[in-house]
Amino acid sequence: MSERIHATYLIETPYPVERAAEVMAGEQSSGTFTRLANETDELRANHGATVERIERLDCVETPSLPVRPIKGSDMPRYQRAHVTLSWPIANLGPSLPNLLSTVAGNLFELKEFSALKLLDLTLPASFAAAYPGPQYGITGTRELTGLERRPLIGTIIKPSVGLSPAQTAEVVEQLVEGGIDFIKDDELQANGPHNPLEARVDAVMPIINAHAERTGRKVMYAFNITDDLDAMLRHHDYVAAAGGTCAMVALNSVGLTGVTHLRRHCRLALHGHRAGWGIYSRSPHIGMSFIAYQKLWRLAGVDHIHVNGLANKFSEADDSVIASARTCLMPMFAPPTPGCEVMPVFSSGQTARQAVDTYQALGSTDLIFCAGGGIMAHPGGIASGVKSLRQAWDAAVQGVTLEAYAAEHRELAQALETFQ
Amino acid sequence: MSERIHATYLIETPYPVERAAEVMAGEQSSGTFTRLANETDELRANHGATVERIERLDCVETPSLPVRPIKGSDMPRYQRAHVTLSWPIANLGPSLPNLLSTVAGNLFELKEFSALKLLDLTLPASFAAAYPGPQYGITGTRELTGLERRPLIGTIIKPSVGLSPAQTAEVVEQLVEGGIDFIKDDELQANGPHNPLEARVDAVMPIINAHAERTGRKVMYAFNITDDLDAMLRHHDYVAAAGGTCAMVALNSVGLTGVTHLRRHCRLALHGHRAGWGIYSRSPHIGMSFIAYQKLWRLAGVDHIHVNGLANKFSEADDSVIASARTCLMPMFAPPTPGCEVMPVFSSGQTARQAVDTYQALGSTDLIFCAGGGIMAHPGGIASGVKSLRQAWDAAVQGVTLEAYAAEHRELAQALETFQ
Repeated sequence: MSERIHATYLIETPYPVERAAEVMAGEQSSGTFTRLANETDELRANHGATVERIERLDCVETPSLPVRPIKGSDMPRYQRAHVTLSWPIANLGPSLPNLLSTVAGNLFELKEFSALKLLDLTLPASFAAAYPGPQYGITGTRELTGLERRPLIGTIIKPSVGLSPAQTAEVVEQLVEGGIDFIKDDELQANGPHNPLEARVDAVMPIINAHAERTGRKVMYAFNITDDLDAMLRHHDYVAAAGGTCAMVALNSVGLTGVTHLRRHCRLALHGHRAGWGIYSRSPHIGMSFIAYQKLWRLAGVDHIHVNGLANKFSEADDSVIASARTCLMPMFAPPTPGCEVMPVFSSGQTARQAVDTYQALGSTDLIFCAGGGIMAHPGGIASGVKSLRQAWDAAVQGVTLEAYAAEHRELAQALETFQ
Repeated sequence: MSERIHATYLIETPYPVERAAEVMAGEQSSGTFTRLANETDELRANHGATVERIERLDCVETPSLPVRPIKGSDMPRYQRAHVTLSWPIANLGPSLPNLLSTVAGNLFELKEFSALKLLDLTLPASFAAAYPGPQYGITGTRELTGLERRPLIGTIIKPSVGLSPAQTAEVVEQLVEGGIDFIKDDELQANGPHNPLEARVDAVMPIINAHAERTGRKVMYAFNITDDLDAMLRHHDYVAAAGGTCAMVALNSVGLTGVTHLRRHCRLALHGHRAGWGIYSRSPHIGMSFIAYQKLWRLAGVDHIHVNGLANKFSEADDSVIASARTCLMPMFAPPTPGCEVMPVFSSGQTARQAVDTYQALGSTDLIFCAGGGIMAHPGGIASGVKSLRQAWDAAVQGVTLEAYAAEHRELAQALETFQ
């Protein structure tokens, strides 16, 4: 088996780059701080990580992350570079948790680096064979919701936390009547004693089911089943038995093995929330890119994954949001595994205002467009909020400006006036 | 129920600190970017997060993490502060994954902050009731290994990855004969095709069992069972059936729900490796302190957790290592839950040289002291390497310097000469 795993990093180091790259490769494969008798040449050849490529970038005067002073160097300079390492699959087999220990383990702590960020990951086909990947993905989500072309217009139940099941159902009733495609719990609303998951399902699903019987279209509700594993599995079954079509999990809170295990038992579309993502993303000098991150979770089996939104309430820049969404729509193996694309979820401070820019930047309607306040706070009420978003996306796809389209669409006009 | 969760953060913000703290509290509880009709005063009072305390620190001219420019402010200054928030347990119930979404979720991404790090976490007693915590902890680990007072002298099988089961067993035989207390797989050695877990157990355990029958003392071997959940449970059972006493998991790779689930089925001591910890720790401006981090994993049920070591090969400073080890030995609830302390694992570039300093700084021998090269590369061989570490700890506990003790202990003298 000559299959290899490749990972590319941004590094910054006061040491010669080649030496620093060798330290990374050694630490993450067969090396230790002193060469041992049983670390034979054959073992190294079969199991050592290889430095595949080094591309020098700029040099800086001050280290980006705290590092120990280097002996004998008063004023070291810190060289940045892109470094690609590779590992034989024989070291770990196609195991996602052990992949993480290998490509994103101890190396972040190495004293040789004043910055180290995982930028990309290329996995051999054995991973595609070992993990089921998305069950529904884009096509399946469209089938479940009966929507062929346009984005799913969605919303988050707000306030995030604090509503009772009955109060949640009241909001759901208005949303469903208002023509929504997709509803999700907030990541803070899971199974708290004031709104237990099963009671929420009992309150919400009859409304969604009755509406589906009337109209032939079932609104997708992503119930947040994030919890310990047994509770997640039990709640998954409860949602499915009640006629639900989707469950949401906070990926970082649940972790890789929990999500993978849930996926193997899953009959619902799996909606991946990335709460805590800032830990990986906020610093340019440590962590992981979304390109690498989403590959792990797609393989684990999510069908949707959050990517923030343009002009969001968070710190992420628009080009980063679009790059994240694009990577969800791209294959992750060569040759491509059919159906491995997932639906990016645009969310966070979204209103009708962002539709045209989002479509122009992404060039696709394969997405879930979630607005919270952007629907709930529409002056015409929820139904008008939903309409305004649909109108905004109609304008986007037709290549018309929001302002021009608003001239003949009252709800859009109201939205543009309200959400400046 | 008036139980509340408290979390303390380091923040840095170009906005007024009080306003920034309110944004955190709102984002992580009932708020959204525009106040909604159903966010009643009662709901806010019952479910809103509260800003409990703000302690201003220094002010800086440049933001520590990239932030968007503030409108109308040419040269903002960035105020640092410690901020404590609290949440009612009613929002989420005692659920570890949902705790993580609440205290370490979206807030890291908020545009109001140029730094945000979780420093500490105080949990109400309902968490202690909901989670089993460590099964063996310090006392149980001592019972399993038959060691009453001194540290467990341990080692990591090296090379990290690449040995066959038979080659692993050869090293184990020498270590066991050499008097070792504790052996662990490297975090890179799990269940790869060149050294499958079950074959490794088959090769290693007969040696450990035979030695235990002869001496009455069973060496603890932490088999790295990190993998997908079903494989972990299967391998846990396999290790237990073979007479093993310990399993290791890479915590960040497995995730919270996987470790919690494993613990509920566990008969072995659970050895927690923190590979990937650098993502949380390397930047002073984003992530999580070890104080908060280890509370999550102790509650999930690990018995041992890695803390690095003095003068380690990584970037962590010695005082941080000691602070981490100390927190493992402290209760995490008031009143203290009996047996919730866990054994800190000192590892990374450790030799006889660090024993005295470690003991003086920590003031305890409740720890596992792991040396890889520090044993394997001892000029007298493995048995001498183990002896040198035991001698070094004897010196430490007796309050004698390493040099003085080495005058009458050959193995220690050799170690000091070899590991400069």
